[in-house]
Amino acid sequence: MTPSAQSFLVGLVGTGIGPSLTPPLHEREADELGLRYLYRRLDLDRLGRPATAIGEVLAAARLAGYDGLNVTHPCKQLVLDHLDELSPDAQALGAVNTVVLRDGRAVGHNTDWSGFARAVDRGLTDAPLGRVVLLGAGGAGAAVAHALLTLGTRRLTVVDVDAQRAGELAGALRDRFGDTRATPGDPATLPAALGEADGLVHATPTGMAAHPGLPVPAELLRPDLWVADIVYRPLETELVRVARRLGCRVLDGGAMAVFQAVDAFRLFTGVEPDAERMLAHFTTLVAGPGPDVRIG
Amino acid sequence: MTPSAQSFLVGLVGTGIGPSLTPPLHEREADELGLRYLYRRLDLDRLGRPATAIGEVLAAARLAGYDGLNVTHPCKQLVLDHLDELSPDAQALGAVNTVVLRDGRAVGHNTDWSGFARAVDRGLTDAPLGRVVLLGAGGAGAAVAHALLTLGTRRLTVVDVDAQRAGELAGALRDRFGDTRATPGDPATLPAALGEADGLVHATPTGMAAHPGLPVPAELLRPDLWVADIVYRPLETELVRVARRLGCRVLDGGAMAVFQAVDAFRLFTGVEPDAERMLAHFTTLVAGPGPDVRIG
Repeated sequence: MTPSAQSFLVGLVGTGIGPSLTPPLHEREADELGLRYLYRRLDLDRLGRPATAIGEVLAAARLAGYDGLNVTHPCKQLVLDHLDELSPDAQALGAVNTVVLRDGRAVGHNTDWSGFARAVDRGLTDAPLGRVVLLGAGGAGAAVAHALLTLGTRRLTVVDVDAQRAGELAGALRDRFGDTRATPGDPATLPAALGEADGLVHATPTGMAAHPGLPVPAELLRPDLWVADIVYRPLETELVRVARRLGCRVLDGGAMAVFQAVDAFRLFTGVEPDAERMLAHFTTLVAGPGPDVRIG
Repeated sequence: MTPSAQSFLVGLVGTGIGPSLTPPLHEREADELGLRYLYRRLDLDRLGRPATAIGEVLAAARLAGYDGLNVTHPCKQLVLDHLDELSPDAQALGAVNTVVLRDGRAVGHNTDWSGFARAVDRGLTDAPLGRVVLLGAGGAGAAVAHALLTLGTRRLTVVDVDAQRAGELAGALRDRFGDTRATPGDPATLPAALGEADGLVHATPTGMAAHPGLPVPAELLRPDLWVADIVYRPLETELVRVARRLGCRVLDGGAMAVFQAVDAFRLFTGVEPDAERMLAHFTTLVAGPGPDVRIG
């Protein structure tokens, strides 16, 4: 790296972000590209600040010369009040995971949804997307749902153990994408919904080391159902393993984790990173020691 | 650099710092040492903040994960109110150019004086330091004076076009180092003072591209008088050139500029940089294009 190379300062704000793989993923790709790049963890717990301090941290980052921030739990909604502008998708989702600081303005983006969309594009190329069951109506589920409906899913069934949460997400999706395209469901309706689905996307914590197990009964899977998991630590969750054994097309959680970083990197730097190189790096990182981490 | 290498985030706060060579000097040395290191310019003019905002910028840097700051004009005194602790020398000088942020505390140091002391040690080894004339009683002059009296100068004559400023600095030095060791003077006393001096230190802007010329009449120089200039852009000021031609031992401004950075780098990182490598790098940097810059 030459001292005259352009340099970038970015960070990740949230709680419990110590084990996140996003900082080394960005930094190594920047090294490959010859960019001086520093990706700082700004952990609200360590800073002794509540989630509502996201505005204060954002203001500090602006003053201290940051080029951007990734924002994760529990601040993806809270950050909205402190931005000058939102991308249309971040506005629609009501959630921001990437803030670009440039020319004195803070602009919010959401690369969780675009990352999942690119992951599907790459890992499930030409798979039928018409009918999909989404398990998990939290923030990750909302991003995934936005991606699927943007990619053309005609009928999305949103299943959550919390029926109200499923209903709210389905309602919000209908408002944006049309009345016929999203339906809430509960775990009891899962057999019927999966029976006529092209694919299943899993967006709950089940399958992480701290939450082992299968999120759906194995007998509901079948070889012509594709399965996408957003859990990425481990990459081979029980769901991924069982689905692969059955012969399903499978998308593990790595690609979404990487592509949210690919898209954020491009937004921060204006430079297109090498996504395949980042995927390869991610695979080595995720194989290393470390506890469960969320995408972030 | 490996992504697991320790990383450092530091910055320079002040006004008009765009052309400062300190950021590339630190960054290149960090590269040589395999440290991920980003040195940000936090220019108060660009940030639209007055000098009194140093407290706000320092608070932002702390929250945003900085490991330290260099502080330059016009904030070296203003920053004092916002620190948790001062090194004894920074306390004595009443000026801080280096703030280390660690374990939640902000500790002020002054490497301007220690940088000059090391520069004299290296560049004027074994030169007599008993009687010295200091031209310029501003902040740089105060740091240089502290260094000289610490190194053993018995009689320092402080000359400034502003007689009050010269008197105040000499008084402060007498308070710290003893009544006999510092005397104020004005330009009219320069011939007499230089006539019995071992060396001359020049600490005014004269000799920078924007302030060309000689700060003292050439006829007051003689071969057995050593001459130190703190102006470093150009490295060969008219004073340096004339003194060299006369056969004086000469210390140009580069060494002080480099050693303040050497000392700050060590304070920020806990790692001893290679001072000779930094000097060599500085020489190539200072030969490059750029307007006048202050040490910073």
